[in-house]
Amino acid sequence: MGGILFSQTHSDSLSFKNISDEMLVNGKAYENLRSLTQNIGHRLSGSESYEKATDWAVQKLKEAGADKVWKEEVMVPVWERGTESLHIKTSTGAWKKLRMLSLGNSEGTKGQNLEGEIIFVKNKEDFDKLPADKVRGKIVFFNYAFNQKFINTGMAYVDAGIYRRSAASWAGKKGAKAVIIRSLSSAFDDVPHTGAMRYDKDDSTKIPAVAIGPKSADELEKTLKTEKIFARLNSNCGMKGEKLSHSVIGEITGKKDQSVIVVGGHLDSWDVGQGAHDDGAGIVQSIEVLRTFKQLGYKNNHTVRVVCFANEENGLRGGTTYASAVEKRNEKHLFAIESDGGGFAPRGIALMTDPEKRLQIQAWKNLFLPYGVYNFDLQYAGADVEPLHQLGVTCAELVPESQRYFDIHHSDEDTFDKVNRRELLMGAATMAQIVYMIDTYW
Amino acid sequence: MGGILFSQTHSDSLSFKNISDEMLVNGKAYENLRSLTQNIGHRLSGSESYEKATDWAVQKLKEAGADKVWKEEVMVPVWERGTESLHIKTSTGAWKKLRMLSLGNSEGTKGQNLEGEIIFVKNKEDFDKLPADKVRGKIVFFNYAFNQKFINTGMAYVDAGIYRRSAASWAGKKGAKAVIIRSLSSAFDDVPHTGAMRYDKDDSTKIPAVAIGPKSADELEKTLKTEKIFARLNSNCGMKGEKLSHSVIGEITGKKDQSVIVVGGHLDSWDVGQGAHDDGAGIVQSIEVLRTFKQLGYKNNHTVRVVCFANEENGLRGGTTYASAVEKRNEKHLFAIESDGGGFAPRGIALMTDPEKRLQIQAWKNLFLPYGVYNFDLQYAGADVEPLHQLGVTCAELVPESQRYFDIHHSDEDTFDKVNRRELLMGAATMAQIVYMIDTYW
Repeated sequence: MGGILFSQTHSDSLSFKNISDEMLVNGKAYENLRSLTQNIGHRLSGSESYEKATDWAVQKLKEAGADKVWKEEVMVPVWERGTESLHIKTSTGAWKKLRMLSLGNSEGTKGQNLEGEIIFVKNKEDFDKLPADKVRGKIVFFNYAFNQKFINTGMAYVDAGIYRRSAASWAGKKGAKAVIIRSLSSAFDDVPHTGAMRYDKDDSTKIPAVAIGPKSADELEKTLKTEKIFARLNSNCGMKGEKLSHSVIGEITGKKDQSVIVVGGHLDSWDVGQGAHDDGAGIVQSIEVLRTFKQLGYKNNHTVRVVCFANEENGLRGGTTYASAVEKRNEKHLFAIESDGGGFAPRGIALMTDPEKRLQIQAWKNLFLPYGVYNFDLQYAGADVEPLHQLGVTCAELVPESQRYFDIHHSDEDTFDKVNRRELLMGAATMAQIVYMIDTYW
Repeated sequence: MGGILFSQTHSDSLSFKNISDEMLVNGKAYENLRSLTQNIGHRLSGSESYEKATDWAVQKLKEAGADKVWKEEVMVPVWERGTESLHIKTSTGAWKKLRMLSLGNSEGTKGQNLEGEIIFVKNKEDFDKLPADKVRGKIVFFNYAFNQKFINTGMAYVDAGIYRRSAASWAGKKGAKAVIIRSLSSAFDDVPHTGAMRYDKDDSTKIPAVAIGPKSADELEKTLKTEKIFARLNSNCGMKGEKLSHSVIGEITGKKDQSVIVVGGHLDSWDVGQGAHDDGAGIVQSIEVLRTFKQLGYKNNHTVRVVCFANEENGLRGGTTYASAVEKRNEKHLFAIESDGGGFAPRGIALMTDPEKRLQIQAWKNLFLPYGVYNFDLQYAGADVEPLHQLGVTCAELVPESQRYFDIHHSDEDTFDKVNRRELLMGAATMAQIVYMIDTYW
């Protein structure tokens, strides 16, 4: 028995090395990411560039050797930015332009100038103390900073995230004209970061919401301590209904049965930068998993399916539509892993599953250690696979090094040159290795 | 006993968090690195900019709160590059310029044109098969590529390193005029990387040695398969004797005894780029350890000493001189840790020590895990502390993520903008945490 177990483990470690070697030497993920980011660029749901990206994904899945490739219909919300600007009036009376981005899904000023005095709060607690008559007619500026103390920057993102999502709704309920938030950024530069917000169903008005960079935010806070500042916002963003769009799916058919292992990322991005780390990386890594299995001649027992989800950023319609279709078809899914934390060096695999399955997977840890992958403790495994988890599927997310992600996430800085070839491919190798283990032993 | 052990561990984990919080929120390492790299820039041993860097280090150690700061005299070799160029003559007869760097410590052409036919070999084995009459009068081009299969890129660097160090000597012994090597680079761009080479004592001629970028190397190999190529090298580099220089040292005196814990990096760099990751990072991290102990009011039992070593790159004189002085003074050293793998996110601590001390340190692993530091298995712990290890001191090196280092190492690309603030500070935190443990328990 010991001998069998040893040779089993030995054979698995060779498979791990074959996967890693093939990717690090011949991997196509980096060149694919160059083509997606530089030929198509950013690709918000509902945009023309997103539709181009779906054709690109079909083509790349075919080149990777998928047995079947198709598009899955998904109705997506359409949000458009249009031109926008934010000025503040300093004590000299001169207007100064600030770098800004309207938050995704927010309504703008319809091209009209919206002017008002800025009032500053540090956080929700301070805001709650303000009576409505201090807020009415004002532009509320929330300067809640990204908490640098968290080692996993994803925790700091969650911690500060409520300001991006909900500040407009809080301020609108007290009669504010607009909100300005400090960007959810781990950097200290002046780059504004966008991202999804939402109005509450009972909001009587949908007030504009914009983000400014950390440097502008700090300067604004400082100035507001000694003088009154007026702002002038002009923007054209807003929701423009819905549109038929697509997730893109490609698979290699299982040799033993038709149960499915999903590996995926999201094909859409925000409408700034190039969507390189978020989430071009997850897309090209997932395609790389399929390419490598084909290239190595691996005969997968179960169907290995790449899903390039639509509309993660501002609606999650790709993930929810996929899970609904799985439920309708009563299609057995063994496992789903996504990559949506950037193309950085892998450190672990987060798992949403029951304790017994977690223990099974944790028992494989020593196979992953030579590849720098040691953390199998984290729980939350990503927005696109979460609807599958609600159907009982074990879900997982690649956990890359998190330090650089929120410097660039949802901003003009999320570009191809920020991605390192080897880090990107090592993440793909981790995904292929866990898929190999699930395919072999489940 | 269990209760004491628990409260002990609990108190250590709080100290770890205090260190990490102080650095991530108030750390000065990133701004110090900006000042070193952007105000002084690269700083080869023996250069004027290196001497400026020693004054800079004295100043920064004082600002950090060192009880004592001094310069330690070190005789260093002086190597100068001067102007240089490499052209190849293509089949059309036109001369084409290639990006290149002479290797450090090599002799140039004294400003004369050196022309010759290029012959290509893939590796040492192929070169050894060539009879001397095929080599005589030729320029030998070694195109040994960085092996992408290694997960720790340091292993690939060691694997290919012999070509940079020794190819000139091999080729010179068979009568070659010069050597061209493929840069030790993990990238696929056209950036040349320099670094130390050496002539053997029995070399009758010291032939010039230059590096070209991976892209030029691949193109040259391809062209050489079908046609003869001549090269024209003109360079002015060479050794210019020795010079009195300095390592810079600062310390906080031990409250219990005068035994020493060293934390260091090397202050010199190659004469290209800005020496940001190599090894400005190690310098500012070491100063950050001292600053943080002072800032937190930590009463260290033993002396915590920052050593900014001179001349790591092309002579190791700083490290050897320091160890000689320690031996002469019969000064007790408990532990020495250096950082010379770049300012990337930490993953472990490499240890050169006996098995029992390694086990003691490995028992602390759970304290480090929340900071992403899990690997205490590696053996080699850096060139500057190695001479101390030979005196019996337990030596260590910070092990950062290695994927990006050799894209930029020893090249024009090693600049401040490649360093991430949080990654740099997390490396400093790891160093301070291990120093805290040694100081508390040894």
